[in-house]
Amino acid sequence: MSTPLPQRTQVVIIGAGPSGLLLGQLLYRAGIDNVIIERQSADYVASRIRAGILEQTTVDLLDAAGVGERMHHEGLPHDGYELCFGGERHRIDLAELTGGKRVMVYGQTEVTRDLMEARAKAGLLTLYETPDTTLHGFDGTTPSVRFTHEGRSVELHCDFIAGCDGYHGVSRASVPASAVTTYEKVYPFGWLGVLADVPPVAHELIYANHERGFALASMRSNTRSRYYIQCPLDHKAEQWTDDAFWDELRRRLDPSAAEALVTGPSLEKSIAPLRSFVAEPMRFGRLFLAGDAAHIVPPTGAKGLNLAASDVSYLSRALIEHFTEKSDAGIDHYSDTCLRRVWRASRFSWWFTSLMHRFPDGGDIERKLQEAELGYLVGSRAASTVMAENYVGLPLV
Amino acid sequence: MSTPLPQRTQVVIIGAGPSGLLLGQLLYRAGIDNVIIERQSADYVASRIRAGILEQTTVDLLDAAGVGERMHHEGLPHDGYELCFGGERHRIDLAELTGGKRVMVYGQTEVTRDLMEARAKAGLLTLYETPDTTLHGFDGTTPSVRFTHEGRSVELHCDFIAGCDGYHGVSRASVPASAVTTYEKVYPFGWLGVLADVPPVAHELIYANHERGFALASMRSNTRSRYYIQCPLDHKAEQWTDDAFWDELRRRLDPSAAEALVTGPSLEKSIAPLRSFVAEPMRFGRLFLAGDAAHIVPPTGAKGLNLAASDVSYLSRALIEHFTEKSDAGIDHYSDTCLRRVWRASRFSWWFTSLMHRFPDGGDIERKLQEAELGYLVGSRAASTVMAENYVGLPLV
Repeated sequence: MSTPLPQRTQVVIIGAGPSGLLLGQLLYRAGIDNVIIERQSADYVASRIRAGILEQTTVDLLDAAGVGERMHHEGLPHDGYELCFGGERHRIDLAELTGGKRVMVYGQTEVTRDLMEARAKAGLLTLYETPDTTLHGFDGTTPSVRFTHEGRSVELHCDFIAGCDGYHGVSRASVPASAVTTYEKVYPFGWLGVLADVPPVAHELIYANHERGFALASMRSNTRSRYYIQCPLDHKAEQWTDDAFWDELRRRLDPSAAEALVTGPSLEKSIAPLRSFVAEPMRFGRLFLAGDAAHIVPPTGAKGLNLAASDVSYLSRALIEHFTEKSDAGIDHYSDTCLRRVWRASRFSWWFTSLMHRFPDGGDIERKLQEAELGYLVGSRAASTVMAENYVGLPLV
Repeated sequence: MSTPLPQRTQVVIIGAGPSGLLLGQLLYRAGIDNVIIERQSADYVASRIRAGILEQTTVDLLDAAGVGERMHHEGLPHDGYELCFGGERHRIDLAELTGGKRVMVYGQTEVTRDLMEARAKAGLLTLYETPDTTLHGFDGTTPSVRFTHEGRSVELHCDFIAGCDGYHGVSRASVPASAVTTYEKVYPFGWLGVLADVPPVAHELIYANHERGFALASMRSNTRSRYYIQCPLDHKAEQWTDDAFWDELRRRLDPSAAEALVTGPSLEKSIAPLRSFVAEPMRFGRLFLAGDAAHIVPPTGAKGLNLAASDVSYLSRALIEHFTEKSDAGIDHYSDTCLRRVWRASRFSWWFTSLMHRFPDGGDIERKLQEAELGYLVGSRAASTVMAENYVGLPLV
């Protein structure tokens, strides 16, 4: 028995991650028809473990999409976080420095689940496990997407294609290489991350600059912690026992945090490389790229999901403007508007990464310059404000 | 006929550059006896062309030394400067952002001249052209300095030695290598500088980030300009004709500055390498290092002379405290107090250098991140304030 499929929709969204799902939900609420197609299975998408810090603008957008209820119930609003260096912690008071702004600790896994449930409830079509996806005609006026679904070849016609399918997705790869300029920087280290059902070591996040390398004490809830340590790129997660991970994490935190750390068996342990990547432009005729399909930031400062959300905000507005007001202004400015924010967040993520990590070729002077910068940063109100206003997210335009 | 020389003084100052001369003057005014010995001739020292931007704290210190009169008459107080990128200039309003602080444009050559004249007027002893200088006994209580003067071997006994003799001087070299930790970063480019008797292109300094490289439009007075362009390290000043220099400078400024640029024959043309260097500690028993003898910053942001001045401020206070109040607290804290400010200024100079120059291995992403940072910097009050408060100089402690 196969699902009956439409031949046409207004917007085909490639990718059922948080960007694609959020875009679908915002378009649906504006009365714009859309279908999501996703290469992976629903289970695979739902179980991916990713970022967990939402900017206020992302929280607002999830509210606007009507999926904010559980987030406000279960998420942890944070008014600040701590920088740890020289064996001491220094708080960055986000709310005080930014006139009341804060961030929300709520995992991407939870955001995805809320969006999937809302989409199911609205009866909107998401096609999972769609191999052989190809994009057609987006440089003209009659785009379409072809793929295989449940063994059948399908062609879905549409007005626009939204490429929300990540760095390795088909969307950006469908554009002729000559039409895209890419910018890339690969960092000479990775993050070894552990998820564990233990209470977080502190109420707020701790970002630690230590001579042995960066560490981050983060959480998903009051009973589930997410910890990271900087590690060499050639390490494998398997070579790190849980005990070795906890020992190394403890060494990189300040003494009182090290003592307070509650350890337990890891639910997940993996190494992620760090990369800065931007593709320009983000629109090609009737194809738009959003989120990781167009840009990757290193995870320091948690800008990835938030940038995807701001792209989706701009894109949903542009498409709604097109369909309801018959204006293409938003569409025409989409790429420039997104890229302005993308580059600023890329800069912040690069800077914060550079400030907190040991670079193999940085030498001792790098550590001293980092310490001087951290000391200045927590001692100068202007510098603390720069840190805070970027962390809570620069305003949307 | 040879000068009659004392056998003993309270402080022997090595080096008759601005640090040594300023220290000598401050000690003299507090009634502390001192002799300066200088390897080079007076003419050589007086004609060296160096930095030209004085922080308020440096201005205050020159006033305290009683040598501020001509500076206040001929120097140019600047309330701001301009950042040029993307073909446009953006003003950083120093005074408005820092609650009224400003900088003074007054060349190091002029500072040196004023200090030399004051020293001559006070009848203080400066011995020039003193080869074979060696430092002795500073790890004990009876230091002395030996050197050759007018063909004679001389030994001068003292309570303290102040090493104000620059990066290549004998003072730091006299300390056992095992007692010093050095930190260094060499930048992969130089500054080609031209001095010319032409009116400056703008009332305030222009720091330009251009895809061809950094440029700086600076001045020494309303009739004498000092311009710089970033150049490869393997270039020689001789290979640059005046015309080639002016053409390249014009390309890196915004169109209106390029059009307004008045050119003329170069009075001086040279290439300076860029380096960050810090030696720790800055005190070894009864030997103190001050200024370039202990640290070098790249010239972007003009911190070199100002850091030397703050070292001298701390050192003069420490020595006065020792001789008049019989307290060694200032002496004991000298190194830590200096180094705190040195590292913060080193960080700023490194950051400003990194923000404004093309790095050979930076790639296109570096240029985009710089543009994003510059755009953010001029658009965010907090970021503009960070720039301004560092530029006018962090407060002395």
